[in-house]
Amino acid sequence: MPHQMSPEMKRCVENCHDCHDICVQTAQHCLEKGGRHAEASHVRLLLDCAQICHTSGDFMLRGSDLHAMTCGVCAEVCARCAEACERMGDDEMMRRCAEICRRCAASCAQMAGVAVR
Amino acid sequence: MPHQMSPEMKRCVENCHDCHDICVQTAQHCLEKGGRHAEASHVRLLLDCAQICHTSGDFMLRGSDLHAMTCGVCAEVCARCAEACERMGDDEMMRRCAEICRRCAASCAQMAGVAVR
Amino acid sequence: MPHQMSPEMKRCVENCHDCHDICVQTAQHCLEKGGRHAEASHVRLLLDCAQICHTSGDFMLRGSDLHAMTCGVCAEVCARCAEACERMGDDEMMRRCAEICRRCAASCAQMAGVAVR
Amino acid sequence: MPHQMSPEMKRCVENCHDCHDICVQTAQHCLEKGGRHAEASHVRLLLDCAQICHTSGDFMLRGSDLHAMTCGVCAEVCARCAEACERMGDDEMMRRCAEICRRCAASCAQMAGVAVR
Repeated sequence: MPHQMSPEMKRCVENCHDCHDICVQTAQHCLEKGGRHAEASHVRLLLDCAQICHTSGDFMLRGSDLHAMTCGVCAEVCARCAEACERMGDDEMMRRCAEICRRCAASCAQMAGVAVR
Repeated sequence: MPHQMSPEMKRCVENCHDCHDICVQTAQHCLEKGGRHAEASHVRLLLDCAQICHTSGDFMLRGSDLHAMTCGVCAEVCARCAEACERMGDDEMMRRCAEICRRCAASCAQMAGVAVR
Repeated sequence: MPHQMSPEMKRCVENCHDCHDICVQTAQHCLEKGGRHAEASHVRLLLDCAQICHTSGDFMLRGSDLHAMTCGVCAEVCARCAEACERMGDDEMMRRCAEICRRCAASCAQMAGVAVR
Repeated sequence: MPHQMSPEMKRCVENCHDCHDICVQTAQHCLEKGGRHAEASHVRLLLDCAQICHTSGDFMLRGSDLHAMTCGVCAEVCARCAEACERMGDDEMMRRCAEICRRCAASCAQMAGVAVR
């Protein structure tokens, strides 16, 4: 493997992928559900989360020594997205999205060297 | 300027930027408006358009000889997005988005060497 | 799963992820190796490939009916990237990148309904 | 304008665009120049900078209240990219890139509420 990626970093890249993917899908799911699921602030948070996950993943894939900064932001955005999905937790999709966001938040916090929220 | 970008290509990069930006903003605007503006298929089209515009812009900025392919797809996606916004054309934001999508569709079609839809 | 993604599409999203990741990593690997590996046109092709894979993956994750267009471009860009890596095929990384690009090209061609190059 | 974007934020979105664009172009320019310009760590920093600028710009365009976090990272990455380009400041392109990175770093620091480096 290039850049001697540690097992923790490899797992974090995978978590970022999973979180990006579920957030892109959940945004569409929420739009189809409508009501409070489709509130502008909720869909925006899902899009924010998807994008910072992709960006943090790429910083790690490039072997950038700045990845701790993007992972720090990613940990915070994922934690907020998880909370929002938990609050709406009335279907399987929201629960799955919350769970994957939590896992990504934890592994990004580890990469950033910050406490898990 | 690097890669000897032609004036047409420079304008196309700018049009892609403008179109990306207005589509990201219009998606949020539509979510706030609700109703048919916030339909999953409409918001998705705006997100599709924003993303392919960004991708096509980057292909041109890198001086890639593959930009004609991404610009070809971009021209088509922008044209569809313009049509969708025109159909909803009941506020200033939708009309502005439609206009900017039309302009981007035309300049991407030119870069791709295809007919404007 | 949302949007009733077919098994083929799910596999294609995974192939796009794998291809994006290996291309981002291979670009850095090539820069470190230097010489013809670090030629501007080769690194550019790897960056083009990484970006269109990400874009095509997102179109499918959103359930967009325009994914056939982005997958068509993706199939072509991946095939060219595979060829370039095969020509340089003097280390494990280049061979792995070529193989993953080939697999992504084939599954994107299937999604786009075009012949595999 | 949607989301009542302040004049400072609008300028910051523009600065992020300009910085993203020049970094994508400078990366190709550096690859063509070769030598220390094409060092893996330098090209990586340009790609990091281009990507976080795009991400921060999108957070602002979506009207996200999390933009201060991405702008904080963006300010730091842009400042480092400016320094790297200044150290290599032996041609017009590097000087221009450094200048545009400095401007983006300053406006992102303002949006993030942090001191300019």
